[in-house]
Amino acid sequence: MAGQAAQNSAPSKNMLWGGRFTGGLDPLMVAYNESIYYDRALYSQDIRGSIAWARANHKKGILSADEFSAIEQGLKQVLEEWRNDRFEIKPGVDEDIHTANERRLGEIIGTGIAGKLHTGRSRNEQVATDMRLWLRDELRKIEGFLTDLLRVIASRAETEIEHVMPGYTHLQRAQPIRWSHWMLSSGLFFANDLQRLREVIVRVNRSPLGCGALAGNPFGIDRDAMAEELGFDGLIYNSMAGVADRDFVVETMQWGSQLMLHLSRWAEDLIIYSSGEFSLVKLADAYSTGSSLMPQKKNPDSLELIRGKSGRAFGQMAGLMMTIKGIPSTYNKDLQESVEPMLDHVKTVGDSIQIATGVLSTLAIQPKNMLAALTPDMLATDLADYLVRKGVPFRETHHISGQVVALAEKTGTPMDKLSFEQLQGVDKRFEKDIVDTFDYQRSVEMRSAKGGTSKSCVLEQIEVLKKSLTS
Amino acid sequence: MAGQAAQNSAPSKNMLWGGRFTGGLDPLMVAYNESIYYDRALYSQDIRGSIAWARANHKKGILSADEFSAIEQGLKQVLEEWRNDRFEIKPGVDEDIHTANERRLGEIIGTGIAGKLHTGRSRNEQVATDMRLWLRDELRKIEGFLTDLLRVIASRAETEIEHVMPGYTHLQRAQPIRWSHWMLSSGLFFANDLQRLREVIVRVNRSPLGCGALAGNPFGIDRDAMAEELGFDGLIYNSMAGVADRDFVVETMQWGSQLMLHLSRWAEDLIIYSSGEFSLVKLADAYSTGSSLMPQKKNPDSLELIRGKSGRAFGQMAGLMMTIKGIPSTYNKDLQESVEPMLDHVKTVGDSIQIATGVLSTLAIQPKNMLAALTPDMLATDLADYLVRKGVPFRETHHISGQVVALAEKTGTPMDKLSFEQLQGVDKRFEKDIVDTFDYQRSVEMRSAKGGTSKSCVLEQIEVLKKSLTS
Amino acid sequence: MAGQAAQNSAPSKNMLWGGRFTGGLDPLMVAYNESIYYDRALYSQDIRGSIAWARANHKKGILSADEFSAIEQGLKQVLEEWRNDRFEIKPGVDEDIHTANERRLGEIIGTGIAGKLHTGRSRNEQVATDMRLWLRDELRKIEGFLTDLLRVIASRAETEIEHVMPGYTHLQRAQPIRWSHWMLSSGLFFANDLQRLREVIVRVNRSPLGCGALAGNPFGIDRDAMAEELGFDGLIYNSMAGVADRDFVVETMQWGSQLMLHLSRWAEDLIIYSSGEFSLVKLADAYSTGSSLMPQKKNPDSLELIRGKSGRAFGQMAGLMMTIKGIPSTYNKDLQESVEPMLDHVKTVGDSIQIATGVLSTLAIQPKNMLAALTPDMLATDLADYLVRKGVPFRETHHISGQVVALAEKTGTPMDKLSFEQLQGVDKRFEKDIVDTFDYQRSVEMRSAKGGTSKSCVLEQIEVLKKSLTS
Amino acid sequence: MAGQAAQNSAPSKNMLWGGRFTGGLDPLMVAYNESIYYDRALYSQDIRGSIAWARANHKKGILSADEFSAIEQGLKQVLEEWRNDRFEIKPGVDEDIHTANERRLGEIIGTGIAGKLHTGRSRNEQVATDMRLWLRDELRKIEGFLTDLLRVIASRAETEIEHVMPGYTHLQRAQPIRWSHWMLSSGLFFANDLQRLREVIVRVNRSPLGCGALAGNPFGIDRDAMAEELGFDGLIYNSMAGVADRDFVVETMQWGSQLMLHLSRWAEDLIIYSSGEFSLVKLADAYSTGSSLMPQKKNPDSLELIRGKSGRAFGQMAGLMMTIKGIPSTYNKDLQESVEPMLDHVKTVGDSIQIATGVLSTLAIQPKNMLAALTPDMLATDLADYLVRKGVPFRETHHISGQVVALAEKTGTPMDKLSFEQLQGVDKRFEKDIVDTFDYQRSVEMRSAKGGTSKSCVLEQIEVLKKSLTS
Repeated sequence: MAGQAAQNSAPSKNMLWGGRFTGGLDPLMVAYNESIYYDRALYSQDIRGSIAWARANHKKGILSADEFSAIEQGLKQVLEEWRNDRFEIKPGVDEDIHTANERRLGEIIGTGIAGKLHTGRSRNEQVATDMRLWLRDELRKIEGFLTDLLRVIASRAETEIEHVMPGYTHLQRAQPIRWSHWMLSSGLFFANDLQRLREVIVRVNRSPLGCGALAGNPFGIDRDAMAEELGFDGLIYNSMAGVADRDFVVETMQWGSQLMLHLSRWAEDLIIYSSGEFSLVKLADAYSTGSSLMPQKKNPDSLELIRGKSGRAFGQMAGLMMTIKGIPSTYNKDLQESVEPMLDHVKTVGDSIQIATGVLSTLAIQPKNMLAALTPDMLATDLADYLVRKGVPFRETHHISGQVVALAEKTGTPMDKLSFEQLQGVDKRFEKDIVDTFDYQRSVEMRSAKGGTSKSCVLEQIEVLKKSLTS
Repeated sequence: MAGQAAQNSAPSKNMLWGGRFTGGLDPLMVAYNESIYYDRALYSQDIRGSIAWARANHKKGILSADEFSAIEQGLKQVLEEWRNDRFEIKPGVDEDIHTANERRLGEIIGTGIAGKLHTGRSRNEQVATDMRLWLRDELRKIEGFLTDLLRVIASRAETEIEHVMPGYTHLQRAQPIRWSHWMLSSGLFFANDLQRLREVIVRVNRSPLGCGALAGNPFGIDRDAMAEELGFDGLIYNSMAGVADRDFVVETMQWGSQLMLHLSRWAEDLIIYSSGEFSLVKLADAYSTGSSLMPQKKNPDSLELIRGKSGRAFGQMAGLMMTIKGIPSTYNKDLQESVEPMLDHVKTVGDSIQIATGVLSTLAIQPKNMLAALTPDMLATDLADYLVRKGVPFRETHHISGQVVALAEKTGTPMDKLSFEQLQGVDKRFEKDIVDTFDYQRSVEMRSAKGGTSKSCVLEQIEVLKKSLTS
Repeated sequence: MAGQAAQNSAPSKNMLWGGRFTGGLDPLMVAYNESIYYDRALYSQDIRGSIAWARANHKKGILSADEFSAIEQGLKQVLEEWRNDRFEIKPGVDEDIHTANERRLGEIIGTGIAGKLHTGRSRNEQVATDMRLWLRDELRKIEGFLTDLLRVIASRAETEIEHVMPGYTHLQRAQPIRWSHWMLSSGLFFANDLQRLREVIVRVNRSPLGCGALAGNPFGIDRDAMAEELGFDGLIYNSMAGVADRDFVVETMQWGSQLMLHLSRWAEDLIIYSSGEFSLVKLADAYSTGSSLMPQKKNPDSLELIRGKSGRAFGQMAGLMMTIKGIPSTYNKDLQESVEPMLDHVKTVGDSIQIATGVLSTLAIQPKNMLAALTPDMLATDLADYLVRKGVPFRETHHISGQVVALAEKTGTPMDKLSFEQLQGVDKRFEKDIVDTFDYQRSVEMRSAKGGTSKSCVLEQIEVLKKSLTS
Repeated sequence: MAGQAAQNSAPSKNMLWGGRFTGGLDPLMVAYNESIYYDRALYSQDIRGSIAWARANHKKGILSADEFSAIEQGLKQVLEEWRNDRFEIKPGVDEDIHTANERRLGEIIGTGIAGKLHTGRSRNEQVATDMRLWLRDELRKIEGFLTDLLRVIASRAETEIEHVMPGYTHLQRAQPIRWSHWMLSSGLFFANDLQRLREVIVRVNRSPLGCGALAGNPFGIDRDAMAEELGFDGLIYNSMAGVADRDFVVETMQWGSQLMLHLSRWAEDLIIYSSGEFSLVKLADAYSTGSSLMPQKKNPDSLELIRGKSGRAFGQMAGLMMTIKGIPSTYNKDLQESVEPMLDHVKTVGDSIQIATGVLSTLAIQPKNMLAALTPDMLATDLADYLVRKGVPFRETHHISGQVVALAEKTGTPMDKLSFEQLQGVDKRFEKDIVDTFDYQRSVEMRSAKGGTSKSCVLEQIEVLKKSLTS
């Protein structure tokens, strides 16, 4: 019976499914289980964590001074091997970075002492520590990338504040705006991302080291000292939570995928603005690509990749949440599936921000086309507002202005070329000064309540954005 | 030709697809477009926002004192009609709550004055304002629900601190823990949720009012005054961002779906613990349900619903992110799809927290079963630690302890019933005092480094959790 | 102690969390648990299923002829009450549609007979049966909607085959195509959707009735007869699978959300094509909306809603998959969360297809703008192909054509206005007949391999599409 | 001004964001854009496609016999280099597999001839062809893996049909079932997966080759001949659809993530069944792992990984759908993001099925524990059915049986040990033969309607399952 055969734990020779076994092991299972080929990215964090661990155990008398010193020196040598690309992974033996590092340490300093390193420690707390250290450092780099992007936005917004272009809603021409106003509109989204990133880092940067497998450490290890050595801001205060918690990855990915949504909308605008039909901006060649078939093509590949990778980043977040959903508390092997997506997510987000910065830094605007794209019907609201100022209820002015638009369309005359008589034919309350309304610069300057597209408002936004960099 | 027919905008009689038109309108399109049947939930926010708007326009001279007074009184009457369930929605006319309220206002005070209310305002800013006001208030309620749950956890953890039970990893018995330690492990997740919720509320509670359709307000409206009247903490500083931004919903849903993951894992544990095989806890009848077929059944429906609804909450978040992905900047009608999911998400999360609180408040633990479920092999780590304290390297002690486990299994003798000779047969370094190791209470008390399952550690965690309520 | 109080299942008076209890019940739990307010949509399916059930039990002798007749008549009366909107739901009693219908049946024919209806049956199989019946019928309606859409595409593609417009890749002008070719490109996606829908319906339309709670029916009920009466195509052959399976909903939603992706891309194109800058098509007023602020605006709300609702549909799928992930086999209450999303998903998809059909039926194309949008550089590939025909390797011709494009750009001369000498200056192999290349109609006719944009190819595609309707 | 600097396409020296440029290129952009490090997996498909392409062009006279022969030989040599791991990728030059292969071909046979290979072809159609060929072949392998799993289920279900165990709903003991019935319940889910997989393959295996960049092929290439050479079942009939379509990946991932949900639920059951408390099954050592800290632990890592990887597979699907959502028709660079997830998804699904097969093949059941886990209250439905057979309405018998359960609980007497008098005390209609009801084997045999857990039903299910393998 299959059941009985398996009870001996050695796969039966006449096993139902044929089999893949060598020496009692399923080689596919070995590969399915091992993480070394991606968690090797955490080698330095793993070593720093082990040194802190050994030092704390030394202070508690678990390790002698000599033992600690040997471990510390040995681990530093292992670190050098990784750095110089000389560390040799033993396939099928080094299942993860923790095993690999301890195996190598044993070879260097002997297993008698190396075998004491793991005292009171579990891989559960070890991997959580490694991941948090790595993520904290990477997120701080991303904080820098995001700051760079915001600086470019602030700088261009200042330099190019004079240029006026169509503002769109529903991708239909709506009202004139400043080009800088457009840049700042995404700038403020990114500034929110920066604020939120700083909050995320605080929750990432807490120490699970000393939580054991689930129940805590029985040798009275000084968790605060280890946390301080490793640069953590505080502890996870419950050992079961400490080993079970991948919230720091989920929250990072929620943050990252929201940022990518912002980049995606930003890229969508620029892709449309750089189409032949809009021609409001022109990408630098460095961020464009040609076609293998069509010689005339210049495609905004950089922006399309950003937009496309927003899906990838979202998928990693959605996938990890699915992985975590409904599993029992504490450590379950399912959680191993948090490592690889974390590594790729952080790279995707960091690269995408930098590419966006490159694109925006080198983008050429087409001021003449921007002006040419403005059409008089975009001033229809200003026309209505003109009558509002004469006391006509807005709902009525909206209707009157609509009639003017219709008249322009019907007669094929641009709205600003309609004669005064034609306008009065629609409504007697139009007076000669109505002509002043047909002025795009005036229109943008009229929007001077806070947050508007007038110059003073735009300058204020630049200040708000700059302030967000340091707060 | 179909194209030409359509150009007149009246659907052709011999239209290709047959058609559904009445009076030039497709009734399905009317229904597809309208939001009144769910955004009516925002009626009071819409009215408060309109009053603030009218007041600010009055201060700028757009409305006279009498006009403002009429509008304010009229809107208060509309509010009363909603509150008393007397507001009659006009099907096909009141497409959204803004239209409905203004239509009714016009009936009450006349359209001459009512038609002035919308001066300089766009539905784009209006709906964003309504949603933020509603969400801020609801999230503050949820903050209260979450606080209640945390109080119950702290209280039970204090009262029931003596009970020891198996701690599991990989759903396999691992080490003894305190029942309170288990409760606090989810407690600390929920405390993080609380901290993060407070950060989310700050970003929700910013005012987009005064942003116009996209370009800002041309009548110099005092956005700060309106924000203050409505209880906002600050402004959205770019008008294009203000009307385009649904981050406050996305971030709320990211938060909510992470909290639901926590509830789902918590529920999973309790579902397993209340199975016949585990029998560690017993749900109150109020949170259980019987079977229509099997008379003996008592099912943990409340917990299964919580676990199941974590999917619903996640789906709303995933769906909204999909909706927002890659659309151009500013307002696009796609964003209407943010309202209904927001309403349901917030209800789902709020209800689920309250149900969890009810379940935990009324749950009966089975202390005898908890004790009976502890098995001596759960002390194998303590056995290894015993030898560590005698200077044996942990890796060796781990191996020795493994041999003891195997001996116990092979001889069918519980580990704590093995004779001293048998233990010495495995390793000579076992001494008589090894017998003290076989004590579950001692085992939990040994885990006394911070975050561990000893009594003092658990009490410290309760303090940490209580502190999180007010900070 | 809280635990002991709860053991009596009556919530303690000094319960920790305050409490909400009335008569031993938590009213929020009652509401959290009940499904009647949405599963009432399944009333007729529930009744049809019950009649089939009673008939089968009658044939097995469980019910007498009179009993069956009473039940059948009674259920038909209940059905009439639902149809005429006279059924009164008893709040707090009728927790779901099954309970409601049986409760009402008992009132009509007495509980003595009504109490026999549920013999050997479980709500687990009952709800699965109801859902499958409902879904099958709705999907068949959607099959009709999709067929309508495909017919409109085929018809317009035939009628408007002459019109040539720019084809885009990366949203950059690429090569001339027929407008009909564009329509058919989405048409073939929708034809795939239709094919797949038919496969989905086959898996939906299987009967779980007779599966019991999990272990099967102990009264030898004739499952085949019931399946036949209800129009099912076959049985679910394992009772545990039958009650646990929500794949028919998941697969429907996977299908639906992929179809919505197709609609979303299609809508994206039309939104861009109807922008002022592209102006290739014009939506009928019936599918456009104005602005509350800007009198000149005409927004493609219908298309934006379609695009936005693709997120909603996706979220429902993602959410349900999350709900199902990792729950144990057989029925768990989590599965109740499959009903409401199913109802809304199917409505969303069905409505969206119909709106798309309406939009396309009434859309006006702008043939002059289409022509005007074509630019000579879109023939750069044709230029390269010209030289290929003279034996020049394509990689070289691609380079030469690129030089011509650059020359045109540099000199500000449209490519087709470059002199013969200028062309020869780039490459001597250009001969007089090169002038024939600058012809958009010729360019589209050149693409005559299957699937191309030449007229004969487009006509073939129309045939393929028509054939897909009936196969 | 930044804009002007960029207009020259060479990044300005005083570029705002500092910069990363070398020789006019941003090295990060090069890396962000290139796909060679993952699409190299498609090398053989790319070469097969190119040979078919060259042959078809030869037949049309675009290539001479010698040219074709040179290309074919050259490509075969490139293939050999890949196979023998001797192909050297040129960093920064070989951006993708298509470029790499053609570059190398040129080195081998000279660019004069190699430069003719790409005539009339676009990378857009090329990558779609490569992906479809690869995916088709991999899905056929997975079809084999799935068949293996189903064979193991059928075989064990036959061999171990005698064993009875508790069936659970809501993870509460419900009714006795056969162990084989449990195995078959997931078996039928997997059989559906198999059926659906075959439908998916049909849609994957269609040829886009000959679609050009978007508009079709201008040299009259014989698409049918190429499709036949490459083993495709048919064509994509619209060239714009052909290059834009990643449905074959989405549908594969929808299929794969649903299959993974099935595996996840199956794994969840086995994880619970192999806990110390349930102890119904025992995993082979090959699929279990120990703890680095706790010597006694044996964890079901294989099953947890399967459960966890269901999240990964789902995330890939969700991510790709997000990527595709709302992009315009035809090829956009976003679509490059479909390749890498496809490769990993297919590996994840294929490996997981094989691991599941390994686990199930070597799993030991614990028949004694299965029996011991059965409790008399699981026969409460049988007790009710007993009275039904005596004509008592089921609703009444359900109530009576409930009273018996309560009596057993109250008196602490197992239900089957209650005296006849005690039973009659509850209801007079209980007669002496009631004792026959307390028999688990009898209970399972009673469920003999199709799909039930009786032996004959289980055997029928095995036949159904076997039949699904070949149909």
